[in-house]
This record gives sequence, C-alpha cells and structure tokens, in this order.
Amino acid sequence: MTTPTAVLLVVGNEVLSAKVEDANGPWLARRLRELGVQLLAIHTLPDELDEIAGMIERERRRATWVLTSGGVGPTHDDVTVCAVARALGLPIARCGPLADAIRALHASRHGGEEAPEAALRMADVPEGTRLVGDAGYPTLVVENVVMLPGVPQFFRWQFERFAPTLASAPFRLASLYLSAGETEIAPILDGIARAHPEVAIGSYPRFDDADHRVRITIESKDRSRVEAAVAALLAALPAGAVLRSEGP
Amino acid sequence: MTTPTAVLLVVGNEVLSAKVEDANGPWLARRLRELGVQLLAIHTLPDELDEIAGMIERERRRATWVLTSGGVGPTHDDVTVCAVARALGLPIARCGPLADAIRALHASRHGGEEAPEAALRMADVPEGTRLVGDAGYPTLVVENVVMLPGVPQFFRWQFERFAPTLASAPFRLASLYLSAGETEIAPILDGIARAHPEVAIGSYPRFDDADHRVRITIESKDRSRVEAAVAALLAALPAGAVLRSEGP
Repeated sequence: MTTPTAVLLVVGNEVLSAKVEDANGPWLARRLRELGVQLLAIHTLPDELDEIAGMIERERRRATWVLTSGGVGPTHDDVTVCAVARALGLPIARCGPLADAIRALHASRHGGEEAPEAALRMADVPEGTRLVGDAGYPTLVVENVVMLPGVPQFFRWQFERFAPTLASAPFRLASLYLSAGETEIAPILDGIARAHPEVAIGSYPRFDDADHRVRITIESKDRSRVEAAVAALLAALPAGAVLRSEGP
Repeated sequence: MTTPTAVLLVVGNEVLSAKVEDANGPWLARRLRELGVQLLAIHTLPDELDEIAGMIERERRRATWVLTSGGVGPTHDDVTVCAVARALGLPIARCGPLADAIRALHASRHGGEEAPEAALRMADVPEGTRLVGDAGYPTLVVENVVMLPGVPQFFRWQFERFAPTLASAPFRLASLYLSAGETEIAPILDGIARAHPEVAIGSYPRFDDADHRVRITIESKDRSRVEAAVAALLAALPAGAVLRSEGP
C-alpha cells in the first residue's frame, strides 16, 4: 500500500504582501487528508516565473502530484502556466478545445460576444495538457502537475473534479488528551516513537484554558499499528495522565 | 534604500495533516508588511530535520532574515533547533543563561519545583545563539535565523520583541477599483507594468457580488513612483472604468 503524496504551491504576491489571506492551503490540507493523500509541503511563492518553475521541477520529482493555486489569469502577473511549461521542458501552445470552452463561457456571460484575445491567451498551455471535466471551465493537468485557479470557489470546484484520481485508503488517527505537561512525558514519548517508527506520533501542548495540557496524536494507514502504539503509550504513561482518548 | 527581506518556515506535521490551521503565516505577513519588510516566501514543512535544514541553508543566503515557527519544544517531533544548527554548521551546546531562564520559569509555574532534564534540553541551542529580551522566555536568534515557537500567542510575543531590529521604511500602496473585467484591461496593464518595472502592480479579479470586478494594486517604497504609475493607469484605462481609488 503506497501512500500518494502531494505538494501545493500557492502562487501570489497578494498572499505574501498580506493583501489576501490564503484559504486554499488550509482547505486543501483537509481535503487531501480525507482522501488519504499525504501533503509533503506547502510553498507560498511570489509571481516570479523562475522561482515557481524551480520549485515545481524540484518537487514533482518526489511527489505523486504537484498542485498549483493561482497565477492562471490573463494579466501580466499570471505566470504559473509558463512556469509549469518551463519546469516540464514543454512548449506552450494554444489548446483548441480549451479555446472553444473559453469562447463558449465568454459568449454565455457577455450576451454572445466574441472572446477577446486576452481571454483566449488563457488557452495557451503546456503542450500535452489534459482537460478534465465536461462542463464549464476544465481542470488543467499536465504530467503530474495540476494547475488550479486562486479564487477559492473555482479552486475547490476544479479540485473536486480531479479528486477521484488522487483518492487512496484513509488515514487512521487516534488522540490521547493528557493532564500532564510535555516535559513530564517527553522521555516516554521518545521511547514509544522510536519503538513504533511506522506510525506518526505528534505532541501538541496547550497553554490556554483547555481541559487538557497536551494532545498526543498517533496516525498511520494501518489501524492495527495505531492500536499497538496507543496500547504501548497507555501502558507507559503515568496513571491518571490520560484524561480521554479518541479513535482510531 | 535597501528593502530588508524575510522567509518564513512553518514547521509542523500538524499543519500539513490538517490537525491545526496555521495562524502564524498570515499574521506575520501582515506584521512584516507594516514593518516595511518584504516577505519572499512561506514554506510549510514537516517535522523532518533534513528538509528543514536544507530549506534554511538555501533561503538564508538570499533573505535578510529567516524566521521559523514551531518545532522548538522538548519532544521527539521538535527538530527545528537541530535543523538550524545543521544548516549553519554549528554545534549544539547548552546555553547557561537560557537554562537559568527555563529553571526560573519552571519554578514560578510549578511552586518552586526543579526543572526536569526534558525542559532543560530546550536550552541546547546552536552555539552563538543570542537571547533577545529581558523578561520571560527569550527570543532565540543565531546569525540571521530567528527561532520562534509555534503556539500563536508565544510566536507573536517573541516576534514583537525582535520586530524593532527588522523595521524599515513603509511600503506605499495605491488601489484602483474597476468596473471592467480583467480580459478587457489586460493589454493596458501589461504596458503599464512594463513601463514601470520598479513598482509592483497586481490585478485581483472578483467573481462575487462585490461592487467592483477588478482591484489593481500599485506598490513601492517610493511614493512618487506609485503616483506616476497610478497617473499612467488612469490616463490609459477606458473612461468610466475606474469606480474609485485609494492611496498611496
């Protein structure tokens, strides 16, 4: 059972300069988790062709999928599509079916009016780009790179159309909520983490007025491994330290 | 007038696996903007020593400051401090004044009790780490790397103590709100962006029921350059396309 992996590139000066707060990263992290896909990294980058191309080239070698958010519009600051072409060593060419989809969308929104050249430039994509989806604006996929728009409602809609291709077996998650602090349990956690390297164990302290001081998470795609690590933790932690548990 | 730059590394499996939504990235983007610091990138990475060290090594060569968020606690999944040491080629050593601060904090929180070894391990930091701030837990800075905790209230508090060191001249921002769509104005924007390469021009379309269809932003540290680009845009855009303007 191989776990598919993904890397997200959030492209946009507007996020780095705090004009817009990115909503696509947190949303995609949740959806990929639900789909059993491991998110390896999120890189938020400016509208710089070289930087985006370099990161795509680097990340697509190790990840099953690289997804990009933003930079696919018709203006001078939309450079993602060119960056993907450069990263993949592919020429840019006008895609006939995509140009047709843009013409149809433009006509339906502007009372039958012909799409201007600036709109049709959005049909200039890396050669070999696949168009996923029948209705509306298609999702653009080339090799293992998925180019999604930055506007959240379009990002989600285009992602969901591609989601079935990514889906894998679900993760199994257990949580222990502790009354003890992190420094008290750190040596125990170290030992259990070393003895169970195939499960991901996280330790998250709280410093607010929550009913617990630490949440321990134990996670894997193999339920029996999660259960074994939870049993080992429950046996090793001091009596009374565990307030309650959840899962897997 | 050189603009200081920064890169943020958000460290944590919990963000990538959607157990926690990162609040430090958006907050820091706003604060750095207010301080006149250009944020070059945000990288959200897992608790993997090699990956974090590699990214720090790479980014600290080009950025004035690299800031890290998270991974500074006492448990097995806290690897940021080791990653910083590796990236900088520095040994880890116990820092006496930091150990004293941890002992004092622990005693004040636990009725005079001696700090356990797991807590004192948080005083093992890259050799040469500077402790910034007099009261409470100090902010840890080594060369051009600032190591901040992931818990948002501590992240903000420790950052603010270091903020005066980063501060620079403010950015000047103007905005034009347009009734025209992006494809109509794309060729005009292209021309203005080429003619004014020293200002950052952004184009942000709206597809909801906002009163405008596109917001154009024009930004630089030099107010007169922003004003010149705004004047050029106002002269080039079709009559009636601009609903209102703000700034610089």
